[in-house]
Amino acid sequence: MKICRFRTSNNEENYGIISKENIIYKIEGDIFSEFEKTTNSFDLNDVQLLAPFIPKQMFGPGLNFLDHLQMANEALGTNATTIEQPDPWFKSITSIVGEGDNIIIPKDSPSGIQYEGECIAVIGKTTRRADIDTAWRSILGYTCGNDISERTWQRDDREFWRAKGSDTFAPIGPWIETTFNPREQNGMLVRINGKEVQKAYTSDMFFDFGKLISFISQAITLSPGDMIWSGTSGHPENMEHGDTVEVEVENIGILTNKIVNE
Amino acid sequence: MKICRFRTSNNEENYGIISKENIIYKIEGDIFSEFEKTTNSFDLNDVQLLAPFIPKQMFGPGLNFLDHLQMANEALGTNATTIEQPDPWFKSITSIVGEGDNIIIPKDSPSGIQYEGECIAVIGKTTRRADIDTAWRSILGYTCGNDISERTWQRDDREFWRAKGSDTFAPIGPWIETTFNPREQNGMLVRINGKEVQKAYTSDMFFDFGKLISFISQAITLSPGDMIWSGTSGHPENMEHGDTVEVEVENIGILTNKIVNE
Repeated sequence: MKICRFRTSNNEENYGIISKENIIYKIEGDIFSEFEKTTNSFDLNDVQLLAPFIPKQMFGPGLNFLDHLQMANEALGTNATTIEQPDPWFKSITSIVGEGDNIIIPKDSPSGIQYEGECIAVIGKTTRRADIDTAWRSILGYTCGNDISERTWQRDDREFWRAKGSDTFAPIGPWIETTFNPREQNGMLVRINGKEVQKAYTSDMFFDFGKLISFISQAITLSPGDMIWSGTSGHPENMEHGDTVEVEVENIGILTNKIVNE
Repeated sequence: MKICRFRTSNNEENYGIISKENIIYKIEGDIFSEFEKTTNSFDLNDVQLLAPFIPKQMFGPGLNFLDHLQMANEALGTNATTIEQPDPWFKSITSIVGEGDNIIIPKDSPSGIQYEGECIAVIGKTTRRADIDTAWRSILGYTCGNDISERTWQRDDREFWRAKGSDTFAPIGPWIETTFNPREQNGMLVRINGKEVQKAYTSDMFFDFGKLISFISQAITLSPGDMIWSGTSGHPENMEHGDTVEVEVENIGILTNKIVNE
């Protein structure tokens, strides 16, 4: 099932279920507990999809793919060969934008901005000190995210607050897929102006979502809607004004955004 | 003017204005735009004060007092003598508790928990790329905060997500004082079981709130209610089960909490 948040042509914000025929049926109720699919329907092409939810908090996993660890080693002069435990960080919720929105290169960015195509788990219920089974059962579904990153700030600042948290640095969408299984080999792809520039698989995460959620929930109570990012792979490159960036997670969907200078 | 959030004996949550005689007058409306003081009044002793607001986001400043920089040098083996720019980090909003609530020592805490008595600026209006004058004008008022810290996690983790963001690690209150001036020499005191263990002055911040807010807002849009912590001074020490910790900011008020083992 695909759950989306959307804005209608007369500026109403709703949640909906998207059918195979790309018809959105508005839902009434709470997507995290009880809701009802109404007969009030919209063509997917006639509405604006919004980021599927604005969570209280979002967490990145730290390094979670082997080749991204190698990139970090080169950038930081370190020599790590494995990752002992998740190393989470906060991704700013004020950086969230949705499908079709612009990603803005800040005018004071020292080195420009890069894509990181990721899969995101959306928490479905309040979760605290969960074991791994409970952690898996806490997930409502999955969506795509682009963890926009400014590498000078990432290297020089104590934390990633602006390197990964500047306004518009968190495109999320296009919807939440509830039947997705990240333990299967789903490609996570990034395309710039149609050309594939990154590919990894959700099944290759060092720490899977069950482990990440269990670990984070040992310290912090997770709330419905909170989002856990998968981490990324490879050596991302800069994007320029006018570029179109797509993040596709196979069996979820495609998230498309445009890059613009501030 | 003192603005508080409180829970009545019949479990209603309200905002109110506290008079000099410790009477709370319930307010109707939005504390960040227009509100009205009603005649509906409560004795301060008959209600439970809550954290004055649950913000979207909170930021610590990084090191912001000279003697805390020296402590960091000792802990990290560094030799910094000054701070070139603010170095913000996210403090988890899920760690917020209020006046009188318990602070919980996590059962898996490697080295126990320490106080950091601080002053907090509460943002009053949406703020983006503010100059320093505009940043000062964006502040609604000030409250007290205790930036509870677990030093092993602070040292070993990439970010402060659990070192300063574990559940109950952000006592905030007792109210928002709108007439406070942090550029004056207001003491920031911590007392453990009545004994003073820390004292600094709001006027001694390396980066004052105007500079912190201006700096953060260059990257991130701040929202009404967002909170900026002052940073702390000195060499905080561990607290134990059963301790009572008070944070007083002169001309604001006293925030009191009890320490308990999980």
